[in-house]
Amino acid sequence: MGLVVHKFGGTSVAGPERLKAVAARLVAAQRSGTRVVAVLSAMGKTTDDLIALAHEISESPHSRELDMLLSVGERVSCALAAMAIHDLGHEAISLTGSQAGIVTDTAHGRAKILEVRGKRVDDALDQGKIVLVAGFQGVSTELEVTTLGRGGSDATAVALAAALGAEACEIYTDVDGVYTADPRIVPEARKLAALSYEEMLELSGAGAKVLMLRSVEFGRNHGVRIHVRSSFNDADGTWIVGQEELVEQPIISGIAHDTSEAEVTILGVPDRPGIAARVVRALADAGVNVDMIVQNVSAEGHTDMSFTVPKAEVGVAERVLGPIVAEIEARGLATDSEIAKISLVGAGMRTHPGVAADMFDALAEAGVNIGIISTSPIRISCVVPAADVERAVRAVHERFALHEPLVSGD
Amino acid sequence: MGLVVHKFGGTSVAGPERLKAVAARLVAAQRSGTRVVAVLSAMGKTTDDLIALAHEISESPHSRELDMLLSVGERVSCALAAMAIHDLGHEAISLTGSQAGIVTDTAHGRAKILEVRGKRVDDALDQGKIVLVAGFQGVSTELEVTTLGRGGSDATAVALAAALGAEACEIYTDVDGVYTADPRIVPEARKLAALSYEEMLELSGAGAKVLMLRSVEFGRNHGVRIHVRSSFNDADGTWIVGQEELVEQPIISGIAHDTSEAEVTILGVPDRPGIAARVVRALADAGVNVDMIVQNVSAEGHTDMSFTVPKAEVGVAERVLGPIVAEIEARGLATDSEIAKISLVGAGMRTHPGVAADMFDALAEAGVNIGIISTSPIRISCVVPAADVERAVRAVHERFALHEPLVSGD
Repeated sequence: MGLVVHKFGGTSVAGPERLKAVAARLVAAQRSGTRVVAVLSAMGKTTDDLIALAHEISESPHSRELDMLLSVGERVSCALAAMAIHDLGHEAISLTGSQAGIVTDTAHGRAKILEVRGKRVDDALDQGKIVLVAGFQGVSTELEVTTLGRGGSDATAVALAAALGAEACEIYTDVDGVYTADPRIVPEARKLAALSYEEMLELSGAGAKVLMLRSVEFGRNHGVRIHVRSSFNDADGTWIVGQEELVEQPIISGIAHDTSEAEVTILGVPDRPGIAARVVRALADAGVNVDMIVQNVSAEGHTDMSFTVPKAEVGVAERVLGPIVAEIEARGLATDSEIAKISLVGAGMRTHPGVAADMFDALAEAGVNIGIISTSPIRISCVVPAADVERAVRAVHERFALHEPLVSGD
Repeated sequence: MGLVVHKFGGTSVAGPERLKAVAARLVAAQRSGTRVVAVLSAMGKTTDDLIALAHEISESPHSRELDMLLSVGERVSCALAAMAIHDLGHEAISLTGSQAGIVTDTAHGRAKILEVRGKRVDDALDQGKIVLVAGFQGVSTELEVTTLGRGGSDATAVALAAALGAEACEIYTDVDGVYTADPRIVPEARKLAALSYEEMLELSGAGAKVLMLRSVEFGRNHGVRIHVRSSFNDADGTWIVGQEELVEQPIISGIAHDTSEAEVTILGVPDRPGIAARVVRALADAGVNVDMIVQNVSAEGHTDMSFTVPKAEVGVAERVLGPIVAEIEARGLATDSEIAKISLVGAGMRTHPGVAADMFDALAEAGVNIGIISTSPIRISCVVPAADVERAVRAVHERFALHEPLVSGD
């Protein structure tokens, strides 16, 4: 009998009624003839509330204790869902991350899953039970409770699906699936039936919030078929699968945008080896997450080096880079927080060289000025003024006719 | 270096400020030169809120899952307290009941502690840490999370104190200690400096709410010195110790009262062997907790048999007893919920036979009618009309001059 891992986010379990709906869905899945594992997030804003409580106690809560605290939210959801399933006449058991065998490293607050020891889950499934696993948490190799950081519950679900050899990992969320662009900006955006891991990775990395990078990566590395769908209806969502499964490969899958970053530029950098490495290493050591890095061709022995970092980390970046700018005798440092990044993603791009030109053209026609540009084989990203981002997304969506049912590649 | 186990109830950890006060108190205890273990309850009404949430999901929540749910409350308190201690520059670690080695039987919701495996607590103490243990919970012999039922956190504290060989178990609560009577009824009631396990057992059994029976019993059986005191000040509370430690033994320690019970009487019971056993067995099988049992001397081949049961269980008692009354050809069944029990407790009673007479006399003078009477070697309990209970407590308190500093026995 096949196994499906189902994952429900905070909105999907936000109250008693929604939890009962989740229970009913899982019972239906079991009745349809599959073994059922469900990974649940904490109810609604529980995790935020717990973090706020911790900060009432301490300005910088001890990381081990913060994990002890935060891990309770998902346990509450799972125990309540198990009760609801029992009331429907089916057997269920809730397990903490530790009980479910989610073994992580010791990095509290951002632990990585090292291994899944699925025996207890397997035994419960063999007894005909629906197994509810608390997401976002595990037990470290030093036997401490850990949490996995942002997107942790998705990671739990995909890792369990891989370890248990699941047919699929169904990620229930508050959106219907992955769209060609954010429907709040482009009302005619189209839901994608399927896309490849690589495309989803690029979209997630470029700011699409539907699924975190780490889960997609894990899914790709272990061949887990992921189905992103709504918890509020039964409609098909978006499948994220290996490229070999995709019959028709569109040139362009979709557009992502991201307004969470700022641009930092070091002006007039002397053209000497080692400087770029120096800069990037210093930022990494300070915990600054550098995203796009662009350096222009050197002109007259000097060049400008730009990159984007999360807005919240601009201050740190400035502190770190100040002395370096002086030391390397660059001309200065400029930062701009009023920017946005727009990215066009599609596996078919590899064989269609005109895509970048079309994108830049569309932006120019819309009067949007392009700052930094960076590309991968299946993605083109442009930094544009923050005020222009919605116009930019709509212009590019329109240019590539992404609202039309299929832009088939060949 | 000596070890003290401290236990804080829900009121004492009800919010961030109170948790910080608890942290400060524990740090002070460590600075004074003791090893420090603290058992915490859930914050304020957390457990009640979780129970309410469970009942929104299910009319009769699955008992294993209810324990998974309820056990989170104490973990939250402990993690937050540990953060607060770290902020004061001391090392702390929070442990779940399971991590602290509290091994219980498998009776979910009312598990009994079978064993305390103190190694992890001991190791943390050896590292100079203040150890915070989630009260009210353990791990069963089948590796499931269990909760200990009412008074469970006190039980955790006393059991840990016994297992770790603590000098004392300090129970911090929202009252100053054990009083000669409820100060809300008798304003001049006096706080007792010390009393014996046996006296405390009788007071708890007779309705004094300050400490649950099970913790006192555990303390007595393992010789744990218990100090009941206020978490809101540094004043000494009441010590509960072995009789041999008490230098001066008063005749009377205090008065307890209980308005939670109802009286059930089987009228005109034929005087045949086996009937009392039959009745009590039937009630026990139905889960009815029978407290006082009294049977008068038989007159003309018939007698009345009375007992008290919790008010909430009167209906069940009536259902169970109806057929039995018919079968044994008793005259009928009468119940009265408008009653209260008043109990006078004191180890010196053993050697002072006039105490019962004095008590009945005081009640008679106050115009209080006595229903059932029952005694133990160190307790006299009377059932009185509920409306008269406060007057009865005051009259007896006055008669024995319990407000005076010492009624010394000899």
